[in-house]
Order: sequence, then structure tokens, then C-alpha cells
Amino acid sequence: MTERQERPARRGTKKTGSEGEHPAPLGRALVAELFGTWLLTFASLGAALLAHLGLLPEVAAAALTPALVVLTMIYALSDVSGAHINPVVTLAFALRGAFSWKRVLPYWGAQFAGAITAALLLRAFAPLPPVREHLPSAGAALLEAACTAVLLAVILATAHRDARLKPSVGLAVGATVGLDHFLSSPVSAVTMNPAKTFGPALVAGHLAQAWPHLLGSVLGALAALLLTWATHGPLNRAEHEAAAGNGGQG
Amino acid sequence: MTERQERPARRGTKKTGSEGEHPAPLGRALVAELFGTWLLTFASLGAALLAHLGLLPEVAAAALTPALVVLTMIYALSDVSGAHINPVVTLAFALRGAFSWKRVLPYWGAQFAGAITAALLLRAFAPLPPVREHLPSAGAALLEAACTAVLLAVILATAHRDARLKPSVGLAVGATVGLDHFLSSPVSAVTMNPAKTFGPALVAGHLAQAWPHLLGSVLGALAALLLTWATHGPLNRAEHEAAAGNGGQG
Amino acid sequence: MTERQERPARRGTKKTGSEGEHPAPLGRALVAELFGTWLLTFASLGAALLAHLGLLPEVAAAALTPALVVLTMIYALSDVSGAHINPVVTLAFALRGAFSWKRVLPYWGAQFAGAITAALLLRAFAPLPPVREHLPSAGAALLEAACTAVLLAVILATAHRDARLKPSVGLAVGATVGLDHFLSSPVSAVTMNPAKTFGPALVAGHLAQAWPHLLGSVLGALAALLLTWATHGPLNRAEHEAAAGNGGQG
Amino acid sequence: MTERQERPARRGTKKTGSEGEHPAPLGRALVAELFGTWLLTFASLGAALLAHLGLLPEVAAAALTPALVVLTMIYALSDVSGAHINPVVTLAFALRGAFSWKRVLPYWGAQFAGAITAALLLRAFAPLPPVREHLPSAGAALLEAACTAVLLAVILATAHRDARLKPSVGLAVGATVGLDHFLSSPVSAVTMNPAKTFGPALVAGHLAQAWPHLLGSVLGALAALLLTWATHGPLNRAEHEAAAGNGGQG
Repeated sequence: MTERQERPARRGTKKTGSEGEHPAPLGRALVAELFGTWLLTFASLGAALLAHLGLLPEVAAAALTPALVVLTMIYALSDVSGAHINPVVTLAFALRGAFSWKRVLPYWGAQFAGAITAALLLRAFAPLPPVREHLPSAGAALLEAACTAVLLAVILATAHRDARLKPSVGLAVGATVGLDHFLSSPVSAVTMNPAKTFGPALVAGHLAQAWPHLLGSVLGALAALLLTWATHGPLNRAEHEAAAGNGGQG
Repeated sequence: MTERQERPARRGTKKTGSEGEHPAPLGRALVAELFGTWLLTFASLGAALLAHLGLLPEVAAAALTPALVVLTMIYALSDVSGAHINPVVTLAFALRGAFSWKRVLPYWGAQFAGAITAALLLRAFAPLPPVREHLPSAGAALLEAACTAVLLAVILATAHRDARLKPSVGLAVGATVGLDHFLSSPVSAVTMNPAKTFGPALVAGHLAQAWPHLLGSVLGALAALLLTWATHGPLNRAEHEAAAGNGGQG
Repeated sequence: MTERQERPARRGTKKTGSEGEHPAPLGRALVAELFGTWLLTFASLGAALLAHLGLLPEVAAAALTPALVVLTMIYALSDVSGAHINPVVTLAFALRGAFSWKRVLPYWGAQFAGAITAALLLRAFAPLPPVREHLPSAGAALLEAACTAVLLAVILATAHRDARLKPSVGLAVGATVGLDHFLSSPVSAVTMNPAKTFGPALVAGHLAQAWPHLLGSVLGALAALLLTWATHGPLNRAEHEAAAGNGGQG
Repeated sequence: MTERQERPARRGTKKTGSEGEHPAPLGRALVAELFGTWLLTFASLGAALLAHLGLLPEVAAAALTPALVVLTMIYALSDVSGAHINPVVTLAFALRGAFSWKRVLPYWGAQFAGAITAALLLRAFAPLPPVREHLPSAGAALLEAACTAVLLAVILATAHRDARLKPSVGLAVGATVGLDHFLSSPVSAVTMNPAKTFGPALVAGHLAQAWPHLLGSVLGALAALLLTWATHGPLNRAEHEAAAGNGGQG
């Protein structure tokens, strides 16, 4: 690995902030995060309800729905907001140094608002689907952490890679979401996403049962940061653009 | 976001029309739209008939068939006509300013002709499959609008992005078509496409039941335009090429 | 469409032959065609046998197997031989002017040899699976022609497009193969490939039943040539490289 | 094929080693190989256990899980280590001349350590799933060799191709893994990966039954080298980068 590559990106640019060359306007980014997280949560809850009613195959609904939402939202929104649609993705990019801490709270606000709105909207039309949890709390937290670690490792690694790989990022991240849900959904309510856990739990009044997944996803994100540091080393410029969008330039 | 990027594309080019640098010849574009919409409608009706006869799994037939047709038609025809194969895609690109209004009526003619021909052709060989609608009219219109809004938001957003993302457009849009049908087909006859609703309904004599889907898809397209304006701002040059083709240059 | 783009490729190059800038050596191309067609036929027969024994889901075996073989062979072999692995693909490229007629017979030899070898090899281990044909001859020929026309239209259109779309060609063509088999396999033994029809029929002694599919696939290829002429116009340089490989340069 | 293209890569560069222009640091590469092989083995064992318990569809678990792991690991790790996560991939790249022999033993160590750790970790939580083997030893070795040959042929061929195809490598190789497992898993415990066979067999105490798969995967790799030599000829520079990573430059 060359020196040029290893040098932290901030020193390699003329910008003083850490948002990269072309940060997207914050207002647009927040609309994108709100919409993306809303869609992710609403579609996943809808699929779970249809599966609960016997109208969709259980595992296909649980794995395919979030995988396809994440895949398409990355292609549709990553230029505007980085398409995090997940509070631990925002956290990991900020801890990695690729995303401005000033934007973390607004992003979290948009993400949790999107997930809560999705749960409220579905409940306006139909009962929320039951949460299927077959593991004890420690097991659920551990599985959540493992699944989140794999997802975040793929997100951070593909963000680190250069522009030639861009057409594959949505496919790679969407496939990881699908894989994680395919393997975890038969035994636990893993979301790899605190907003997607919190919103429906708040609306359904099940917040007490949600903590293993809230805790697990944060621990998983920290594990992924360690792994990424071990495999890819420090931050590079590509991560800035992946984390914060590039102002609509692709 | 830089000034250069934000400036409406029309002022940034030397062309006076709004079809971008290399509009495809209209005749070729109409053949492409006619064929694409015919294939989309014929394959979807065929799959529904096979599923009705117990020869294909219901949800797989309803979701996979249009997803694969849209994916492949985008790769095969987007250079020639933009591969709309859907009247509300044409409408949305025109309202967005990316597609010449002079071409809207011819495109619509080709699209509706393709869908009607598909229904007539299938009926020449076999009975048309029954329409499965489990929602009241208002619910069907609302679900149609929501699914169409998501699809059009992905189409407009990926059209806005630069050429590096091109190899992913068919995948992203096809995945959205699959997701929308996967979640809606168990409860409603959502098409996200007025031609695909109208053609079979006309041939089967069920036009009176089609209005919620015709209305919903137009409302969904308008919602997607609002969302795209909020996330991506005004028109850029990439949208012109995506909407109108580029004369066979990729 | 600009003059430069429309001009037949042959005049635009310094080469006198019609194989494009970097034709692959014929020997390597024939190994690639033999291997690819062998794998396509062997895997499809194997999947049909496993499905017949109840070890694989019928439609998944029939649609997914050839789709994945075609997808991967295009990425692995298209630089060496164009990855036709199908006599009507070779025929269509030759009729289109993108592929040297001198190479057509050798290609056909390699393709038929691959398919026959695959059937012989499978029969050495297990009985060949029965052919499922629920249509009368005329219907089988018509469905074969329609499916082949769609496949060849996608192949010719993506071959026509520029290098930026290259990473998508395997996906687009593989998806079309999967779609065609998904919709046709419940009712007919459609292959869209005379070698894949002929090899197993010869080895099983069912040649008399194979003619609707042999005839249909040729008619479908001719229909696709007409459609491609109507949508994309005359030959361009990209088609030469797609048809004949480019000597290992990608 | 031009002279420039055919010339062995080593002479075309200024480097004296055979690791290409930007070999990744060995430490990082070993972490990547350890993690990737661990994930591949752990996820596959987990999926097999869930399928054994009736919680996942058998064939989907067996085919989709390793396909998605391989797809995502290639996008996440190929810049760091080449994303072999398989001892016969390392062997084949070394025999091909694309990968330094000095790195082979460390890579093998990381890969076997990853697979053994995965089996130990799963056994700490649950019993290891039973190995489903319906073929006699010779048949299992032959099927393993055939599946591995196809996989390695795709890996070596896509490694040989130029950078434009890069966004497709994960898709192509992942699809081949899925196809091979889809067709072999109903009858034999094919892994195409000696580490993935050895680790669980060691931990479960079934090493005596593992030899057909260990032997078969090595024979398959040799067959793929022969085929690649016949179709693509000698080593080129793209293979160096694909085999050894490129120091985080994409």
C-alpha cells in the first residue's frame, strides 16, 4: 500500500471540514434519509404482516424485502445522503472519520422519524405483525451483533474502494442484508438497524424487549470498525464521498 | 452541490430542444416502446395464467416476471427510447423537463398499443387470467400510488446520476419492480403502469374496475416528482439522456 | 444518431476482415465454445434429472440452471469467443455482419460437439431425464420462436451498446434466459438453442420430436434480427467485439 | 491477441517479485482471508443446521448462503487479499504464476484457521449439522472435481479480464458458487474448498470421510488450470492484481 493511499484523506484535500469535496446539502440529505428509512421499515413490516397472514413465504419476505429496499435506495440516494438509512451506519462512518459529527444528530433524527412514521402508518391500516424472537436476550444481542458486524464490514470496505467498484456497492450491501436476514430471521428479530428496531417497538409498546437488538447493533458496528481498521487501514478519500454523498455527481 | 451541477441542463447545452445531445430517431424509439410494453404485458399475463393453472408459484410469477422484463429491456432498449415502456414514466420525465412534450403522445400511443396487442394475442390462445383484487377501490388506488411512487422515485433518481452508475440502472429499477409486486400482488392488482392495467382490462371488458389503478399510478408519479425535487433538485443533463436515449451510444 | 455511429464498422476500421480489431485465435475460441455449450447442456440435463427425482424444485431447476450458466460463461469466456454457446447466436451475429462466416461452421461444430458430449456423459452415469412437452408441434415451435426472439433481441441489443454497459451484459442475457425458461418450462421443452435440443435428443433417440424446437429457434433468431434492425439500425463496431471476442482484452 | 497482451506480466513491469504493482501488506491480507473463510464456513454450517431443523428450505440454504458470502467478500476484500478464502484458489493462482509462492503457506494457514474456528464456534452453541453424502467416495470425488473445475475456471478467467469487468467479478463468481451448490447439494457434500471441508470434519471427527472432497477439489483446480491455459493462454497483468489485491486501490 503506497504512502499516498494511506495518508488520511483530510490532509490530502484543500477542504477544512471532513465532508469530502462535495457534501450534499443537509436538507436534501435529511429528506433522503427520512424517506429511505421509512421505506425500509414500512416494507419490512408490511412483508412480515403478509407472511404472518400466510400471503407470502416467511423467509422470502424477511430476507428479500429489506435486501431489495437497501439495494435500490443505495442506487437512488447514495449521491444525496450516502444512503445510510441506519443509525449505526452513520455512527460507524463518523467514528471512522469519514462523516461530519455535526451531521450525526440530524441524520439520526431523520432515521428514527422515518421508522416511527412507518410503524404509525402501517398501524393506521392494519395491526402490526408480531415480533418473532426465539432466542434469550443474550443470544439475540450476540446474533444481532454478529449480523451487524458483517453488514458494517461490507459497507465500510466497499466505501473504501475506488470509483470503479461503484456500480457494485448496492448489489454487495443488499446481498449482505439479504444473507443476514436469511440466516437470522428463523430464530431472532435481527434488524442490524436500531431505527428499524426502535420505531415499531415504540409504536407497539414493546420497547422493553428491544434492548438486545439496540445494544447488539451498536456492538456489531464497533466490531466492524476494528475489522476494517485491520484489513483496510485508515480512512481514505473514497470513504468521505461514500459516507456523505457527492452533491449529485454520481 | 456545485453551481455547474445545479444549473438546469438546457442552459448548459447548445441544443435548443430538450431531448439532450443525441435524441434517438422517433421511429426506432416507438418500435422499442411498442415491443417493450408488449413483452412486459404479455409475459406478465402469461405468468399470471400459468400461476392460475397451478403451473407456477403465484408470488414468484407475479414479482419475478415483470422484474426480469424491465431489467432486460432497460439494458436492451434504453439507448434507443429510454426504455420507459410505461406511460407514467414518460409523463414524469416530461413534467421533469427531461423529455420533449412533442414525443409524449407518440410514446403513449406505442405503449398502449403494445399492451392492448399483448392482451389480444394471449386471448387468441387462452383465456385471460382473472384479476386478483382483494382491496376496495380507495385502498387499491392508494397502494397503486405508493408502489408507483417508489418505482418512479428510483427511476428519476438513477436517471439523475452520472454515467458511472449506468451498469446498475437496470438492476436497480428491475429490483424495485420486483419488490413492489412482491409486496402488493398478494392483495391487489397493482401494475405501476397504466398501459399494463388498461390493455388487459379493455380486452377482458373490465375497464370499470381499472380506474383505481389508472388514477393511483398517475398520483404516485406526481408524488415521486415532488420527492425527487426534494432530494435531487432540478433537472440535470444525465436525465435528458436517460429519458430520451442517446442515439445508440450506450 | 450521429453519422459516425451509424456508419458500418467495417469501413471505420483498418482491418479487411469482419472480425473487429482483435479477433481471438480460433483454437481458443473453439475450446471456449465447446466447454461452454457442454456445461450449459450438462448442467441443464443434470438439473432436470434431479428435479425429475424430486431432489430439486422443477421450475427453479429449469430456469435458474441455464440462467446462471449463461451469466457466468459470458463473464468467463466472452473475450475469447464471444461466449455464443448457441448455434443461433452464431448465426444471428453472422447474418448481422458482426461475425465472420468462415468461423460459423467451426463454431457450430464445437457447440454441437459440446452438447452431444454432455448428453453422452450424463447417460454414462444416469438415465437421461424425460423431455416434458405439453404442447402440440406447432405450439412448441411458436413458443420456441417467441422465446428465442426475445433472447436474441437482448443479445444483439446489448452487443450493440458501448463499453460502459459491458459489466451488465452477462446479467441482462442471463436474466432473459431465466425469464424465458421460467415462463416456458411448465408447458414445453423450449431451449432457445438448437445444440441443446439436438444433443440430448440424438443420444436419447428422440430426434423426431425435436424438430419444432430446432425450427422455432431459427425462426426466432430471424425475427430478432428484424427487430434489432428496426430498433438499433445497422451494425456498429461494438457488435464486432461482442460477437468475436477481443483477444483477451476484456 | 496482441504481443503486448500475451507477454508474461512479470517482464512487463519494473517489479522483481510476482505480486504485481501494489501487493497488499501480508498482515492485512491474512486478516481478510481468516475473516472471509471463517464467515463462509460459519454461515454455511449455520444454514445447514437451520435447514436440518426445518427452519430454512434445504436447497436454498445450501446454495444461496455460500453464493452470497462469496459475492460480498469479493467486493469487500478483493483489494486487500484477492478474496481467495479457499486454499485451491490460492494454489491455482500460484501455479498460474499470478501469486507469490511465499504467500501460499500463510494464506493456507489463515484459511484453515478460519474454517476450524468457525466449526468450533458453532459447536459451542449448537451441534454441528450432519453431512449429507449420498454418493460413494469415487463419485463424490468426481463431482467435487467437476464443480471445483467450473468454479476455478470462472475465477481464473474473470481474473484475466481487464478492469472494466471488475464490477461483475463478485456477481459472476458468486453465481458459479450458487450454481455448483444448487446442483450438487442434493446428492453430495461438495464444498469446492478444502478448508471448508476440513474444518468441520476435523471438529466433528469425520476426517476419514472427507478425503474424496479434499482430493477432488485439488484435481478440479488442476483441470481448471489446463482449461484456462487452453482458452486464455499465459498469465497477464490483470491476474496479478486479482490474485494479490492492489493495496486498497479498488
